[in-house]
Amino acid sequence: MAKAPVLCPQTEDFPRWYQDVVAKAELADNGPARGTQIIRPYGFAIWERMVAEVDARIKVAGAENASFPLFIPQSYLTREADHVEGFSPELAIVTHGGGKELEEPLVVRPTSETVIGEYMARWINSWRDLPMLLNQWANVVRWELRPRLFLRSTEFLWQEGHTAHVDEADAAAYARRILHDVYEDFMVEVLAMPVLVGRKTPDERFPGAMNTMTCEAMMGDGKALQMGTSHELGQNFARAFDIVYQDREAAQQLVWTTSWGVSTRMMGGLIMGHGDDAGLRLPPRIAPTQVVILVVRDGDGVAERVRLVAEALRTAGIRVTVDDRVDVGFGRRATAWELKGVPVRIELGPRDLADEHATVVRRDVEGKRTVGLSGLTDEVGELLGHIQADMLEAARTHRERGTVDVTSVPEALEAAEGGFARISWGAVDADGLATLKAAGVTVRCLQAPDGDVATTDDDPDSIATLARAY
Amino acid sequence: MAKAPVLCPQTEDFPRWYQDVVAKAELADNGPARGTQIIRPYGFAIWERMVAEVDARIKVAGAENASFPLFIPQSYLTREADHVEGFSPELAIVTHGGGKELEEPLVVRPTSETVIGEYMARWINSWRDLPMLLNQWANVVRWELRPRLFLRSTEFLWQEGHTAHVDEADAAAYARRILHDVYEDFMVEVLAMPVLVGRKTPDERFPGAMNTMTCEAMMGDGKALQMGTSHELGQNFARAFDIVYQDREAAQQLVWTTSWGVSTRMMGGLIMGHGDDAGLRLPPRIAPTQVVILVVRDGDGVAERVRLVAEALRTAGIRVTVDDRVDVGFGRRATAWELKGVPVRIELGPRDLADEHATVVRRDVEGKRTVGLSGLTDEVGELLGHIQADMLEAARTHRERGTVDVTSVPEALEAAEGGFARISWGAVDADGLATLKAAGVTVRCLQAPDGDVATTDDDPDSIATLARAY
Repeated sequence: MAKAPVLCPQTEDFPRWYQDVVAKAELADNGPARGTQIIRPYGFAIWERMVAEVDARIKVAGAENASFPLFIPQSYLTREADHVEGFSPELAIVTHGGGKELEEPLVVRPTSETVIGEYMARWINSWRDLPMLLNQWANVVRWELRPRLFLRSTEFLWQEGHTAHVDEADAAAYARRILHDVYEDFMVEVLAMPVLVGRKTPDERFPGAMNTMTCEAMMGDGKALQMGTSHELGQNFARAFDIVYQDREAAQQLVWTTSWGVSTRMMGGLIMGHGDDAGLRLPPRIAPTQVVILVVRDGDGVAERVRLVAEALRTAGIRVTVDDRVDVGFGRRATAWELKGVPVRIELGPRDLADEHATVVRRDVEGKRTVGLSGLTDEVGELLGHIQADMLEAARTHRERGTVDVTSVPEALEAAEGGFARISWGAVDADGLATLKAAGVTVRCLQAPDGDVATTDDDPDSIATLARAY
Repeated sequence: MAKAPVLCPQTEDFPRWYQDVVAKAELADNGPARGTQIIRPYGFAIWERMVAEVDARIKVAGAENASFPLFIPQSYLTREADHVEGFSPELAIVTHGGGKELEEPLVVRPTSETVIGEYMARWINSWRDLPMLLNQWANVVRWELRPRLFLRSTEFLWQEGHTAHVDEADAAAYARRILHDVYEDFMVEVLAMPVLVGRKTPDERFPGAMNTMTCEAMMGDGKALQMGTSHELGQNFARAFDIVYQDREAAQQLVWTTSWGVSTRMMGGLIMGHGDDAGLRLPPRIAPTQVVILVVRDGDGVAERVRLVAEALRTAGIRVTVDDRVDVGFGRRATAWELKGVPVRIELGPRDLADEHATVVRRDVEGKRTVGLSGLTDEVGELLGHIQADMLEAARTHRERGTVDVTSVPEALEAAEGGFARISWGAVDADGLATLKAAGVTVRCLQAPDGDVATTDDDPDSIATLARAY
């Protein structure tokens, strides 16, 4: 009897493969209330590393963390017309508190522009208070009809940055700084995901924004995933919440605001962007465990030697887990660590020890080699660097192979069956857009021909990337 | 005209002083919905350090972080009788989601024993899965009728640990490990707060617990504040959620669970435990800024030299802020940094520079001294260590001076007017307890005569600490 694969193969049913990985690698579980999720310790350890990396970059960009309330008076939401229209269908409403019906129902925040706008208005007086650069790590709630773990959940974890500036240019520059120096840098350098960075079309904008910019990644099946967005909100929220400052000439001015966020959705992107039929594949910089040492068989001082090897790796700053469960079959354990995507596996048994070497296996590509124990720490350190670079390169190749330059909407539809279609924006008219939409294909972003973020909605020379998306 | 003090003096009106500090040091603000709060960047920076220190200790104790849902089906709460009785009056209820009335209302979590119990039941199969040690950093909601920033807020931030064990002894040992090695160690060593660690009486227990242990601190006005608790939940939740495992003899057994938490309430404790009439006083280990360098007046290379001094301090691992706003009066700036509780202030102007020295001022006690610039980094590093130790010592002295050994309930009532009363537990009968309660005095904790946590509810030789409390 052939052994059944642990996971549904990707080519057979990609969404099913995704579900299998999330469950079997113990990343997340469905919560009891519809659309809610539980992030299990292994999944959360990955998220914690994402948080640390993104948070460090946000602090370098000068924003300060704070904490705003979960509950927002319903009346706040209604002050910005596009905003309330966009979020109304997704709201969770608290009607009772402390055993009584509330006079004004409270909305569980779907995002915090409104409440933060209210307080910025109180805290900002003069140009000296600007820019005001705030961020919070928080949970938000948006009712989901078709929930999917990490990708679309009723409650999710994220950071939301909110800033106020003296003028449009300063706000625009800051929104771009976050997009590039925080999000793109993190996704490319740490997640090894070569995201496209571009401008959203008006249809795909954040409710209340005058410009939404996005990082878009290609998943293993060729679909797109929006990994993060940065918005220029113009003076929409400043006007709605009366956020004004006194300029150097003592005149009252409305501020210009931005907001920007990345969420646990990136977990879904990481899984679908790098995973293969054996499970997760984690780039070393995001992996909670970078190296697992498998004790093949105990005896002849293996346990003691493994302890020393692990210590040496840890001293070199490498995150190591030792698996000495020799009562569990070796193959079963190896498969489990592959499923969890640990970048490097070191196998060590009495025979290896006698030869003063270990077997080193990388997760990202086929490849097993024998390494002398004396040089192991250096070799593994180098190998982790190679894996990080190779995974980025492989993801870039995957995206390039899955991207087709086209000149018409019908061609685009065909290309978007299994990847991205690049088309001159001038070649897509209103009818074309309607055709794409009907087929479930969306404009992921607009870029200048050189790959920069497009600066307007309607430059016919912009390149539109079209794809199906999660 | 005499200058009005920045804050209401503590002796005049302590609660008012507290409100003033929280507002003027820009720690927190009331949210728009009743009882909610906004933690402002300076307050949040302190909280972030608390989180980092507590989280590191939790990880050393072997617990893993995870994330459970904000919304819990109402039916879950009702499964443990004491638990639902304790929390019902404080619940916030979501009745509408996605534009529709929900079939089953959702409770916004007041704590997560129930939902975590449900999932432990799914994840635990055999003794090999135990202990299961989980923790989450999260927001919870408990409706507050008399909210006070940090101390009692409808929404607050905390960590909640939840663990399952093979037997009572293992659960009891772990609850104590958290109490001592995580909470007490953090509070004493980092917050410089000499907490009493003891057992709660049945009246003061967590709803559903068979034993609640607590860390109690004395505030500046002699009242007590509960800073954190660790609970033995026995098999109450295991029974309610059917959390069973197969033991080594293949028999089904109920697990024994614990839970434990500290929250943003510790911010209130830190403020009231160390603050004085000039504002906050932060122990160096928790201070986001340990040293502020004030440029007294610019010119003669002061700015450049300040940069070098700051760099040298930072290289030594000291958290430094430079205040070079020379257009704002020196006194005003000094007062503002005192208000924010920065442990050490370095004043540097052209005259100091000419003499190759700086003025170093500590925040915790009166004391200004002149230090040569060449030895500044070493001196400041040492000074921060001294301040940390001195603040702990001062808090211990404050508590000892404010604690009276008494032998009767009337004496205890008198002592609790301005501090703690210590009384033999055998000297407090049911009538005595009723008298204390009527006067607003509670049993903060029971300790063995040697200061250890009492192991039973009714040992007459236990020492009860009685006080008014926040």
